[in-house]
Amino acid sequence: MKIGVIGTGVMGSGIINNLLQANYDVYVYNRTKAHAQAVIDHGAVWQDSPRQIASVADVVITMVGYPKDVASQYYGETGIFAGTHAGQIVVDMTTSTPTLAQELAEAGAKQGVTVLDAPVSGGDTGANNGTLTVMVGGEKAAFDELQPIFKIIAKDTTLFGGAGRGQHAKMANQIMVAGTMLGMAETMSYARAAELDVNQVLQTLGGGAAQNWSLDNYGPRILADDYAAGFYVKHFIKDLRIALDEAAKLQLDLPMTALAEQLYTKLADENKLADAGTQAIVKLWSQFA
Amino acid sequence: MKIGVIGTGVMGSGIINNLLQANYDVYVYNRTKAHAQAVIDHGAVWQDSPRQIASVADVVITMVGYPKDVASQYYGETGIFAGTHAGQIVVDMTTSTPTLAQELAEAGAKQGVTVLDAPVSGGDTGANNGTLTVMVGGEKAAFDELQPIFKIIAKDTTLFGGAGRGQHAKMANQIMVAGTMLGMAETMSYARAAELDVNQVLQTLGGGAAQNWSLDNYGPRILADDYAAGFYVKHFIKDLRIALDEAAKLQLDLPMTALAEQLYTKLADENKLADAGTQAIVKLWSQFA
Repeated sequence: MKIGVIGTGVMGSGIINNLLQANYDVYVYNRTKAHAQAVIDHGAVWQDSPRQIASVADVVITMVGYPKDVASQYYGETGIFAGTHAGQIVVDMTTSTPTLAQELAEAGAKQGVTVLDAPVSGGDTGANNGTLTVMVGGEKAAFDELQPIFKIIAKDTTLFGGAGRGQHAKMANQIMVAGTMLGMAETMSYARAAELDVNQVLQTLGGGAAQNWSLDNYGPRILADDYAAGFYVKHFIKDLRIALDEAAKLQLDLPMTALAEQLYTKLADENKLADAGTQAIVKLWSQFA
Repeated sequence: MKIGVIGTGVMGSGIINNLLQANYDVYVYNRTKAHAQAVIDHGAVWQDSPRQIASVADVVITMVGYPKDVASQYYGETGIFAGTHAGQIVVDMTTSTPTLAQELAEAGAKQGVTVLDAPVSGGDTGANNGTLTVMVGGEKAAFDELQPIFKIIAKDTTLFGGAGRGQHAKMANQIMVAGTMLGMAETMSYARAAELDVNQVLQTLGGGAAQNWSLDNYGPRILADDYAAGFYVKHFIKDLRIALDEAAKLQLDLPMTALAEQLYTKLADENKLADAGTQAIVKLWSQFA
């Protein structure tokens, strides 16, 4: 089976390398070709446009940055939909809007193409190790057909319903992460301000009702002054804005998520940390500035 | 060794029963005697005042509700300090203010009595099973001397520094829990509003970067419509207010914790759910009202 992957960033590259290792033929396209060189060196075959990827591949995966990037890969003269053929499955793994996911599914259906939304969690580590969590929206038949591929790149893949439901599940995930990240930042700042041994605090909290993945994983990195991006601040801001837009459409008030969006925007704009990892949120407090 | 325990509520009773089972002589006092009957039936010996408890016991433990309750047990004609003798150790396990903890330690020192602050986490389950987490502030010699007792009631006991540091560590814990509780409430409300299968969302989120104890433990209870108190809304409000007061003294801004205090206060005042469990926070959203 020939798989096309559009987007050779950190996440896309991890997925491509795992597919290559499982002996799939992988065709790749990226807006900036130079960023695809590493996976080409590993055996992926370059194509000059999303349209060509769609012409040559049985299954197309897109993993790009923002919803506008997604749209630009699918539509237009050199876009995916200009090259697709009936019976094909296209999977958008970008964290994007449920609305765009539904539009793409409808646009695909007109050509006999099934489009799934399948955003992931697990970051670069999950992509590299094939241990992503994949949240899927779309048709069950296509979801079932892609199981062999999902098993290579993910430890857990769940179908949440029709088109857009994968993106909604990812938004639920990001809202929860907003809570653990703000909690972590305030907890660690308080602990340091109160002159506690913060490492001791992490140990104790990790064994009880305050336990969470963010504190377990990012707490030690913060204490080691490591703010490199597993997951970019700028991408988290994108996700939080999508979540808040969708919540508004659902007439749902999310005050904590709104606060997280404000604080992360401040971190990106005032502290110029858009390209840092999300754990850099602690830098809004003088205890870690 | 004779241990006195003042406060026979849910938490105190769990601790008393475990001490009795370990063959300690346990002397008890409670503001409302009727609420001590169950532990008296198990073998605890009633005393008529905190002063009498202090006169008869080698080690005194207090586990009451609010900081004002703590003060009323220690001071005054029938208070603990009216009955203590030099060399005694008194341990306040109530979640209370670091300031009061320091005052009690100083007041005790004048009489040759060591007072430790040792608030706990782990709730009723932890108290009943002897698996509490104890966060201690005060003198190391007393901390070491009480290890045999801590080992009976807790799975983890940590000394965080001098008087008040146990309370500070507990505040750090509660700030983190505020983040996971708000995150959980907004996540589950979003998931239901977006017509996802919330149980499926809990399963998926529990395996990734959004994982946390609150979601793992309270999520299923909420879906089972179980809002009984493991930990009371009213007590969490007390804790959040102490955390915010202490943060103000430290010139520390905790916007997420402040939001949590507002939302829980609304839950107690407008929804009349002060006596519900903290997972009832979801009831502020129409999806769970």
